[in-house]
Amino acid sequence: MGGNKERNERWFMSPFVDSQVAISARIRFARNFEDYPFPMKITGEDARKMAKETADAVLGSGFALDEGFRFFDISNNPIETLLPLMERHVLSSQLAQKQGVKGLLLNSKENLSIMLNEEDHIRIQSIYPGDNIDNAYESAEIMEAMIEERGCRYAYDHEYGYLTSCPTNTGTGLRASLMLHLPALEASKFISKLVPALGKFGMTVRGIHGEGSESLGAVYQLSNQITLGKSEQEILQQLKSSAAHVISQENNAREKLLTENGLKYRDRLYRSYGILKHCRSLDIKEGMDLLSDVRIGFLSRIYEMDRPDRTIYGLMMDIQPGNLAAQAGKTLTSEELNVYRADFIREAL
Amino acid sequence: MGGNKERNERWFMSPFVDSQVAISARIRFARNFEDYPFPMKITGEDARKMAKETADAVLGSGFALDEGFRFFDISNNPIETLLPLMERHVLSSQLAQKQGVKGLLLNSKENLSIMLNEEDHIRIQSIYPGDNIDNAYESAEIMEAMIEERGCRYAYDHEYGYLTSCPTNTGTGLRASLMLHLPALEASKFISKLVPALGKFGMTVRGIHGEGSESLGAVYQLSNQITLGKSEQEILQQLKSSAAHVISQENNAREKLLTENGLKYRDRLYRSYGILKHCRSLDIKEGMDLLSDVRIGFLSRIYEMDRPDRTIYGLMMDIQPGNLAAQAGKTLTSEELNVYRADFIREAL
Repeated sequence: MGGNKERNERWFMSPFVDSQVAISARIRFARNFEDYPFPMKITGEDARKMAKETADAVLGSGFALDEGFRFFDISNNPIETLLPLMERHVLSSQLAQKQGVKGLLLNSKENLSIMLNEEDHIRIQSIYPGDNIDNAYESAEIMEAMIEERGCRYAYDHEYGYLTSCPTNTGTGLRASLMLHLPALEASKFISKLVPALGKFGMTVRGIHGEGSESLGAVYQLSNQITLGKSEQEILQQLKSSAAHVISQENNAREKLLTENGLKYRDRLYRSYGILKHCRSLDIKEGMDLLSDVRIGFLSRIYEMDRPDRTIYGLMMDIQPGNLAAQAGKTLTSEELNVYRADFIREAL
Repeated sequence: MGGNKERNERWFMSPFVDSQVAISARIRFARNFEDYPFPMKITGEDARKMAKETADAVLGSGFALDEGFRFFDISNNPIETLLPLMERHVLSSQLAQKQGVKGLLLNSKENLSIMLNEEDHIRIQSIYPGDNIDNAYESAEIMEAMIEERGCRYAYDHEYGYLTSCPTNTGTGLRASLMLHLPALEASKFISKLVPALGKFGMTVRGIHGEGSESLGAVYQLSNQITLGKSEQEILQQLKSSAAHVISQENNAREKLLTENGLKYRDRLYRSYGILKHCRSLDIKEGMDLLSDVRIGFLSRIYEMDRPDRTIYGLMMDIQPGNLAAQAGKTLTSEELNVYRADFIREAL
């Protein structure tokens, strides 16, 4: 979960994450096994057995070998050691904070993962750079099938579909989402009109860290709210058409900023770059806002990256408090962390 | 009054202008000739004669030849062509705006000048980088004596001293001033307490462009208010001791900012540098404030100038609207001027 070599393999180091409005596409399946009580009732012993069975099923497959999957027993990890994984969206805060047996299966790119004993027995997740929701869905399906093929039986009801701990996930157990970068819609305040409008189509908009989190760096998650009574394909289609609408609105708003207010906007994008290249102290909120500007600066070809081995979204992950502290390799005060963040960004840009 | 070669010779391109709190020392003598009516009563013909006589006296001297003095008849110049000279403090706004015969004698470094037919017949001025008030005084005296030696007789009263148009200049006709950079006293708001205290000692504090001007870039002029009833040496001594007090207060305040509030202050100095190096639009006020920070950054050896042929105070002159427009060599809208200013500073830093 640590070193530099591994870091450079991660999915968000792909230049494709900075190539358009959509940063990433994510699919999540919630599944439970019929041979075990649901997580809220499961005993420690059963939980361990369930986790081992699933881990064996996954790690024994050729697919997992190709993908460099590893199993992490995080049952006894202090929460601060789990923070980097939470910030990189491979571990939910719910699982990190939960007491008892819990585990994580994770590939080397960190785009494929399976959480064990979260709200459901397993949470299969697949992330792809850009708007590639179909690829993400395909990989999630492969993981889901792989576990079933090795003898684990999912709790399934012919009327309701896949059974889950929380009824909001019952049915397909599918959550499909896109991470979108919406600085122009945020700047024009249009985002506050868009959110309720999307709600009417069963879509929800959240901040970068999911439910209840505020938006940082103008990064938003667009996802489906309803899993029951719709087919997987309907859900994906709904997400795609909603996303297409939001993305086109964002592109229009960017165009408008760059033409109608061009000088002022370009000046701002340059200043943000200048501040990141020179400042000596940077908190997370300002860091994310400045990186948001710089992402537009690069995408609009206003300026170029000095270091093409970096991605802006990758830097957004890197400067999160947990990831940053992990890279520093020692405990830092909040002021020291701000200094380290500024040093890191200057070096990385 | 124009080209790049001349520009690089100017006194404010000397690194000494950025070596301490004091940017420059200035001496001004107000003198009138007894053979002519005072400027408010002089006829055009007499004014022309007086100007020619003075110009001949100055230009015929070996000193003026060594210094590269030239005479400029500015009687018919539109005011916008005079703006650059006003901003560089070799021409008063009063003379620039005055109707009728008027002239300027100026050396190539632009630190020695004589205004003709301003409020008084002549205004002799000498500027030296740093706090070198004695050198400035010596050069002004040389110019004053040179004119007298060539047969021009100053209006002088044995009781009152040199006679001037305005009684506030009568006596020595001397104004001695220091241009001081006081960002730390400004930041700590202590400057507002200092100004009235200095008034009690007959000293006055003004903005960068003199009487009635606001401070820009934390640059202030400290000068004597009273010319009558004091000897030249008393006036110089009073300026020196007042300046020593202000300079030591400023240095203490800087020290305090850099130690007590070190990280935040250093971060700010770096950010200002980063903005100047990257912005695409810059108004005069922000430009001066950012250069003020950068002057401290360089003086405190927090960072270095990429181009040692430049001085910060020189850049402060360069980005004034008139000088900037003159360098652009064409008429610019205020928005275009802000873009040109940003381009100029990026290139120059």
